[in-house]
Amino acid sequence: MSAAALPLSADDIYDAQRRLRGVAASTPALSHLALDEIAGRSVVCKAEALQRAGSFKFRGAYNAVAALSPRERRHGVIGASSGNHAQALALTGRLLSVPVTVVVPHDAPKGKVDGARTLGASIVAYHRQRDDRDEIVAQLAVDQGLAVVPSADAQAVMAGAGTAALELLWQAPVLTAILVPVGGGGLAAGTAVAAKHINPHIKVIGVEPAAAADTAASLHAGQITELPAVPDTVADGLRHVSPAAMPWEINKTLLDGVITVTDAQIVQAMGWAFKHLKVVTEPSGAVALAALAGLDLPPGPVGAILSGGSVDLDAFHRLVAAPPPRKEPALA
Amino acid sequence: MSAAALPLSADDIYDAQRRLRGVAASTPALSHLALDEIAGRSVVCKAEALQRAGSFKFRGAYNAVAALSPRERRHGVIGASSGNHAQALALTGRLLSVPVTVVVPHDAPKGKVDGARTLGASIVAYHRQRDDRDEIVAQLAVDQGLAVVPSADAQAVMAGAGTAALELLWQAPVLTAILVPVGGGGLAAGTAVAAKHINPHIKVIGVEPAAAADTAASLHAGQITELPAVPDTVADGLRHVSPAAMPWEINKTLLDGVITVTDAQIVQAMGWAFKHLKVVTEPSGAVALAALAGLDLPPGPVGAILSGGSVDLDAFHRLVAAPPPRKEPALA
Repeated sequence: MSAAALPLSADDIYDAQRRLRGVAASTPALSHLALDEIAGRSVVCKAEALQRAGSFKFRGAYNAVAALSPRERRHGVIGASSGNHAQALALTGRLLSVPVTVVVPHDAPKGKVDGARTLGASIVAYHRQRDDRDEIVAQLAVDQGLAVVPSADAQAVMAGAGTAALELLWQAPVLTAILVPVGGGGLAAGTAVAAKHINPHIKVIGVEPAAAADTAASLHAGQITELPAVPDTVADGLRHVSPAAMPWEINKTLLDGVITVTDAQIVQAMGWAFKHLKVVTEPSGAVALAALAGLDLPPGPVGAILSGGSVDLDAFHRLVAAPPPRKEPALA
Repeated sequence: MSAAALPLSADDIYDAQRRLRGVAASTPALSHLALDEIAGRSVVCKAEALQRAGSFKFRGAYNAVAALSPRERRHGVIGASSGNHAQALALTGRLLSVPVTVVVPHDAPKGKVDGARTLGASIVAYHRQRDDRDEIVAQLAVDQGLAVVPSADAQAVMAGAGTAALELLWQAPVLTAILVPVGGGGLAAGTAVAAKHINPHIKVIGVEPAAAADTAASLHAGQITELPAVPDTVADGLRHVSPAAMPWEINKTLLDGVITVTDAQIVQAMGWAFKHLKVVTEPSGAVALAALAGLDLPPGPVGAILSGGSVDLDAFHRLVAAPPPRKEPALA
């Protein structure tokens, strides 16, 4: 499949960058000598946890809503989310005066849901195992005339997500590889299109929790593969049973591989980021950092996207102070 | 006293900026709608907690050591510090291959001291109540031929600290006031000289813990005033009994006032920064943020310098999860 036939182009990402100018935060690219030693190469962390609304999701949500017609905006938007996309949509609605409804799983972290509610979004809860989320969203969209803004499976959302990689390669042009968390796959897809447009030789490697390695399994099978059950991982933002359709079209072509990390490695990385980078990362936001210990890649500087930081202090402390047992290489 | 007679000029700060280019991190200027609402104005937080070695101190330490002669560098440097300057000097020594000795109080936070040790610095402990720190430093400097790099009381150190304000006013040129933590006073002095060079009308307001308000007391008395005892405040980096001499010469002329905050307000602000900004701040690093609730200043956008983030997760959680009782306005 040629790059021209992919459902996302570099131009889409540059368009998103123009819409996000002066709106999204330009997040820092952080480095630390100790991290370079652990990874055996220089490492730059793109701290999207510091993005507005706490994660990279704001880039995609804002870009998608800003691209709607005035009429669509007046009616409002709806999205489903484990939390970060909900907060991102809610902030977008607040900034653009667009009514927002978010459909969240019953077990989503309270902090994430409260964040969206405080920003004025209407919250609809569903049961992760029992209900069909997409059906609920579709029904509400029809009933209330709302535009659907998916968390990953839309061109404008992937394009917005890709602007983080544009920024990162402006901040650190020498990178030879980027490690990117994979949930629905929108961030990975946006990152791959943006990064390979700037540098066709760069490697873009996805990172998934070992228990939620649906994209790894799909790449291995050469087609979308569904996990037998909703994954049980500490990384609540990455509990996908299968890749989203549109990101998958890109990721199957452009991703150079997927690394998996254990929950123990993830919480180690969260503690490391707190201690050394002074950045709060949620479990899903720390998977790329977690993949750096024992990284098996050709030499060269590497970027890691710390995708989000929505986590309660109590939960953070509980996880990091008493992490699950581990045997794998991890950040010390 | 005219600006020309002050022991620090804008040129010194621009020189420092040149030395720090490509070495110090350009830390982000973060904003949040909820913070704007709390402060009743737009607020920009300069997140120096994300600076290399975890605080703004790296700017001054590196600038001071980089300005030494090759011969002085070969012999090595010594500095005294409650922790952040120690880590900053240690990292500087590592980067410039200069031997570093740091003299730290016996009760300095373990994490800060370990950070300096890991980077290769020699550690000498002293007792805060019993020993004369400056005497210990002076004796070791003479005995071993070391150049002294004070944590605040030196032109090159203040100049380096002032580069944070240069950056902040590049990132947010519209600021009408900057809130800056005051310990020894070096950051406040550097900030005041830099900010007022760029905008003579800008207000630079110091922030001190109520229990360690030595600069507030000195400004009130019109001369350096010593507190009766080593202050008891959660902000371990700001436990000064009196302002350092050289910063005082600047601050008494240029500071537009000092606000004090209670320990309860400080730990509230730490929790707020964790939850909303995703930045880890130590108590001393959160005082400017703590001063934003109930701020009594003319309208206009305000900058707050979050000066450092060296704090253990356990200590952070203990402080923030069970804060001291409070009656004052604080971040919700």
